[in-house]
Amino acid sequence: MTDIITVNRDRLWRSLMDLAEIGAYDDERTGLRGVNRLALTDADAAGRRLVISWMEQAGLTVRIDKMGNIYGRRDGADPEARPVLTGSHIDSVATAGAFDGCLGVLGGIEVLRTLNERGITTRRPIEVAVFTEEEGVRFGTDMLGSAVAANRLTLDYAHALTDRDGATLGAELARTGFVGLAGERLDPPHAYVECHIEQGPVLAQAGVEIGVVTGVQGISWQEIIIHGRAAHAGTTPTELRADAGLAAAQIIVHLRAMVDSGSYDDLRATVGYLAVHPDLTNIVPARAELTVDLRNPDDTHMARAEQDLAAFLRTLEENGLSISTRRMAKTAYVPFDDTVQKVIARAADDHGLAHISLLSGAGHDAQEIAVLCPTAMIFVRGEYDGISHNPREYSTPEACAHGIDVLATTLLRLADQN
Amino acid sequence: MTDIITVNRDRLWRSLMDLAEIGAYDDERTGLRGVNRLALTDADAAGRRLVISWMEQAGLTVRIDKMGNIYGRRDGADPEARPVLTGSHIDSVATAGAFDGCLGVLGGIEVLRTLNERGITTRRPIEVAVFTEEEGVRFGTDMLGSAVAANRLTLDYAHALTDRDGATLGAELARTGFVGLAGERLDPPHAYVECHIEQGPVLAQAGVEIGVVTGVQGISWQEIIIHGRAAHAGTTPTELRADAGLAAAQIIVHLRAMVDSGSYDDLRATVGYLAVHPDLTNIVPARAELTVDLRNPDDTHMARAEQDLAAFLRTLEENGLSISTRRMAKTAYVPFDDTVQKVIARAADDHGLAHISLLSGAGHDAQEIAVLCPTAMIFVRGEYDGISHNPREYSTPEACAHGIDVLATTLLRLADQN
Repeated sequence: MTDIITVNRDRLWRSLMDLAEIGAYDDERTGLRGVNRLALTDADAAGRRLVISWMEQAGLTVRIDKMGNIYGRRDGADPEARPVLTGSHIDSVATAGAFDGCLGVLGGIEVLRTLNERGITTRRPIEVAVFTEEEGVRFGTDMLGSAVAANRLTLDYAHALTDRDGATLGAELARTGFVGLAGERLDPPHAYVECHIEQGPVLAQAGVEIGVVTGVQGISWQEIIIHGRAAHAGTTPTELRADAGLAAAQIIVHLRAMVDSGSYDDLRATVGYLAVHPDLTNIVPARAELTVDLRNPDDTHMARAEQDLAAFLRTLEENGLSISTRRMAKTAYVPFDDTVQKVIARAADDHGLAHISLLSGAGHDAQEIAVLCPTAMIFVRGEYDGISHNPREYSTPEACAHGIDVLATTLLRLADQN
Repeated sequence: MTDIITVNRDRLWRSLMDLAEIGAYDDERTGLRGVNRLALTDADAAGRRLVISWMEQAGLTVRIDKMGNIYGRRDGADPEARPVLTGSHIDSVATAGAFDGCLGVLGGIEVLRTLNERGITTRRPIEVAVFTEEEGVRFGTDMLGSAVAANRLTLDYAHALTDRDGATLGAELARTGFVGLAGERLDPPHAYVECHIEQGPVLAQAGVEIGVVTGVQGISWQEIIIHGRAAHAGTTPTELRADAGLAAAQIIVHLRAMVDSGSYDDLRATVGYLAVHPDLTNIVPARAELTVDLRNPDDTHMARAEQDLAAFLRTLEENGLSISTRRMAKTAYVPFDDTVQKVIARAADDHGLAHISLLSGAGHDAQEIAVLCPTAMIFVRGEYDGISHNPREYSTPEACAHGIDVLATTLLRLADQN
């Protein structure tokens, strides 16, 4: 019996396209169909039910935990052996494509379908996980479900998080019917492997199909709230203003200058959320809110970037403003397991697929599960510079199948390990 | 018979406080009661009905024009003589106080009540106007009702304007019952005098009660829309980004630098409205929208500021962004009539009130009516640096009465002119 297996490319693609219909919308800007499946909305719940039905059709035993994480299990020959885990998430940002997260979940199910068709029994069980609220855009903390499963965050903390309308995650879990019976702490698996689109341009520029991911760069999310003073745009002399919107703008420009300075390793800084109040043409903003997303592959440089930003905020307060910050998320650099990386690289070689090693620029559930067991990730290349979180996000059927072929062979080999 | 009259201070104040109850809200930030009476909302309609009831109680003949402007007329001895007009507006911004506009309308009614009580018959009629959508924050063009009355804008243009929810001004006029029968063009009055709070710190700093307004500085409103490209915050290298939010921030910072340069006379620049899309923490903004409010007492400097801003936008487009601008409003510097200013100044002297001449930093209905007839304004001083468009906006009962006393004597003298 060979230990190199290939999956059904067409069936994998059909799963991706079918799931993308749930939460689909017509994106005005791109003219494309996009996906809007924020965590624990009706669309996300419908997507979860579809994925569970596919798990059940594949003969998997489905369990749901108190955090809404879903696990589909295929038994192995040794009922005592710890399982090999794969998976990802199916929640999306508000303007998403069909691949982010979904490839890892549907690819995992496709691997198990393939093992069924070939009548292969592995020594260890294999499980496919669907983690809750990976994106973090609805309840403010990303990798939330996997962080609770890995015991970094408590269930109470997660259930109490609120969206912008004040709905708690716990209430939304209950409303959608996804408060499961299983305990939220995941028993340590034998290993975890997650296949994901790269969401960046590196693989395409290198001309390779497969990325063996060495780790995930550090991520820092914070919310900044600036209190100034509302004033009439025409009559208030400039020197008497405390303009919260101007301060927000100065922060954004300053962050870019920090990035461009090159003094913080490969720092990336993004202000994606920005609001001013009262938001009227002829009133100096009394309040501004923004989020700052920092990424860095080096924890020391990240800490220094955060300190320098805090110092800049203090200089802005000299202009009659008061500024508060709230930590939304913070993850250190997470290195992945060398041995699992080697299994992935050999699988890619055995499939005749060129590969390189690279660091992940985005956060993934794998960085949470990495504290429980040896973990690594497989990246699949994307088109259009790897654009993601956008309806233009696209990986070809071939690219997706290549990634899941490597996942299949990797899982098979890990599941036969002692 | 003396031609110096004083109004009923308590009754004037009660009118101001009663009208402020309509659209009142509890302002979280200041802990004060504020006013939210955006034009042609239910609150504005209720305010209009209250003001009309007061006009009718004062024996005025009320007419409403097709633009929703309301006029209350007290006849004079000569039915053929052109009326002296006073007035202002009662619509507000979303976070307003009790005085902006309301003082001019309710003060005008109070003057006519006083003339009634004293049995004074003027040669000319005196009319009190309530102009529609002076603030411009709901339908995007300020001084809208007076601009239509003065033939600067057409009724069709005004009726077709939409708010952010897509409701047209014409439909909102009809919904609230304020499409009147009178023609929207105002027959040229003999003169127009508007009393208004200063909305600035100049009178208080000068230690005087009354401002004789020499004119209104030029105002330029434009909307800027920036199209960039959505991208993942973690995986998209900085050099591949087209960050619409960053460009918006650069514009705001650049405008302040223009102001601080001192190269544009007394330029004031405000970005009060700012939005990014999709407005999510980990997505580089694909689109940003902002408004730019420029004020300048010199039309040449204003034009140069606008040109320099446009040139700056073109430099931003070199970063892969596309930027469009839309003119929302533009008014040139408007000088007021010297003769009317002298009548006001003499009335202030006769009341024993110290006064200075000053330019208005804010736009007012008077600048529109000024094309029809000799026009000037009376400013009343405000507390707290003259803060306005804010629940802290406050002028004392004494300050309000002083302004309306000057208005009363001014109107009486103008209405007895040949």
